[in-house]
Amino acid sequence: VAIEDKNVVVLVGGVGGAKLAHGLAQILPPGRLTVIVNTGDDFWHYGLRVCPDLDTVMYTLSGLVDPAKGWGVAGDSFDTLEAMRRYGEDTWFGIGDRDFATHLLRTQALLKGDTLTAVTHKFTTALGIAHTILPMTDAQVATKVATAEQGELDFQVYFVRHRWQPTVKAVRYDGIEGATVTPEARRAIASADVILFGPSNPWLSIAPILAVPGMRDCLLARDVPRVALSPIVDGEAIKGPAAKMMSELGMEVSAQTVASYYGGVIDGFVYDERDSALNIGGVRTVTFDTIMRTDSDRAALARRMLDWIFNWGDSSEHLDDHSD
Amino acid sequence: VAIEDKNVVVLVGGVGGAKLAHGLAQILPPGRLTVIVNTGDDFWHYGLRVCPDLDTVMYTLSGLVDPAKGWGVAGDSFDTLEAMRRYGEDTWFGIGDRDFATHLLRTQALLKGDTLTAVTHKFTTALGIAHTILPMTDAQVATKVATAEQGELDFQVYFVRHRWQPTVKAVRYDGIEGATVTPEARRAIASADVILFGPSNPWLSIAPILAVPGMRDCLLARDVPRVALSPIVDGEAIKGPAAKMMSELGMEVSAQTVASYYGGVIDGFVYDERDSALNIGGVRTVTFDTIMRTDSDRAALARRMLDWIFNWGDSSEHLDDHSD
Repeated sequence: VAIEDKNVVVLVGGVGGAKLAHGLAQILPPGRLTVIVNTGDDFWHYGLRVCPDLDTVMYTLSGLVDPAKGWGVAGDSFDTLEAMRRYGEDTWFGIGDRDFATHLLRTQALLKGDTLTAVTHKFTTALGIAHTILPMTDAQVATKVATAEQGELDFQVYFVRHRWQPTVKAVRYDGIEGATVTPEARRAIASADVILFGPSNPWLSIAPILAVPGMRDCLLARDVPRVALSPIVDGEAIKGPAAKMMSELGMEVSAQTVASYYGGVIDGFVYDERDSALNIGGVRTVTFDTIMRTDSDRAALARRMLDWIFNWGDSSEHLDDHSD
Repeated sequence: VAIEDKNVVVLVGGVGGAKLAHGLAQILPPGRLTVIVNTGDDFWHYGLRVCPDLDTVMYTLSGLVDPAKGWGVAGDSFDTLEAMRRYGEDTWFGIGDRDFATHLLRTQALLKGDTLTAVTHKFTTALGIAHTILPMTDAQVATKVATAEQGELDFQVYFVRHRWQPTVKAVRYDGIEGATVTPEARRAIASADVILFGPSNPWLSIAPILAVPGMRDCLLARDVPRVALSPIVDGEAIKGPAAKMMSELGMEVSAQTVASYYGGVIDGFVYDERDSALNIGGVRTVTFDTIMRTDSDRAALARRMLDWIFNWGDSSEHLDDHSD
């Protein structure tokens, strides 16, 4: 099977999802990949519309990303924030000087009436990204985290200001009922040969995308493989609060829990070979080494996933791990 | 006469005026100086409210200013603008990364409903400035320059984008009829022992201040010396388009022209010893070396001006130069 002829849609949040998207971007010809990105983390800060996940994906696919942090622009300086501190500002959210350019131009375009989809298209084109990055919706949705210690927090206050230390009781997506699937996302899904779910936080990154009214139906309407990659590896989260949250929400911290959570939407699940064997009715599973340390790890994992998926038709033995 | 006991108000534009203000700030005790600054140059750029003259004065009095340019923050980087160019933006107006902090926080405060006076007070206090810097008004006024070649231009387009090369036919201050003198400016003028006019462009920097409805009356109501320092030295402008404009507007390029222009408002005029002797009815004059190369030049000129003014009462000989 020539994966080069396939249209791939991948749903992602920030750093982890961006790595898989980058792997796919490396192996797919221009125009074949559409990355649909969570925008529930977006917020207004210093009067600017900041879209952390969209920017992480954009900086990653353009090669601008800070490789150590996994977000922000490599080599960025922080002179604006430093100057803000001189005015007594508490600069708890890190925005580099180069990163500010993105937020400034985006905010101007949005206030002028452009959609977030259009702004993102303009940016990715300017940065030479040959694939498509789409926000999950053009509406403004705000993830809110109900915590045991501090009541409900805005997502970035929970995530950055409090370094995801408060105990999570519940998560909701403020404004989601007014959001719609964009024509661009609808078209990408309609022509997809496979729909992937990145190894992002299921509750904070993937669930907001699935919660956009109409999105779940769009995905389920397609008779193509829908396959998630587990963010839980060896019983832990690679990065961020996924494992901590699962435990706080009373779930077992395991790839199995993630697979069950996605149960109604996916028909394939990829998890790490370090994890215990899992079984979900009607869902094909496979284990790989899913840790992506280098750019070529990303490409290799993306290729393995697509090779596995596009050989499903061959025989039932593909329900088992045949990765090596 | 102890100039330390005097309340001084000085009206200024950008770089030239900021130098005199800095000279005064050096020799006056905390709280004795109020700088009323032109805001006709202010404009919206990248969605931010940029106030070039206010910031030049603020950076100069706080010691942050770039000493070579006379505006902006010393050692500032330009990474945000560079990143904007990556998105295809034409970055014709120079804003450094540290400078962006000022515009970002100011814009947020203004949109929240704070006055420009209040924002400026907050900034200057944070920067340790012991004197008062006031915008000429809290209203938004926009200087427009009618040019022979390109019709009417926004001030910064004329001044920065076209490097004041178009031929000036006329200048107007859009929105000035709705502007008012702020209570803070009114109070400062009411308690002033002297009112100075900085060596700023009379048409682009001082005239907008005088054009704020009520400002001229406020100034004329005070029975204290009102003294201008000539921006024309040796028949030329130290900086900027003053001389070029005067010639384009059909005036003789001379300190005399400036003195005549201010004729109805001032009763004292300080000009450079390099210039031809001038005579304006009812206006005392004196010549000094008015070029301010160093910080101590600024302080020395400020002291000479105040010494001269506060000795007017002594004898009529002070109508002549007694500076050395």
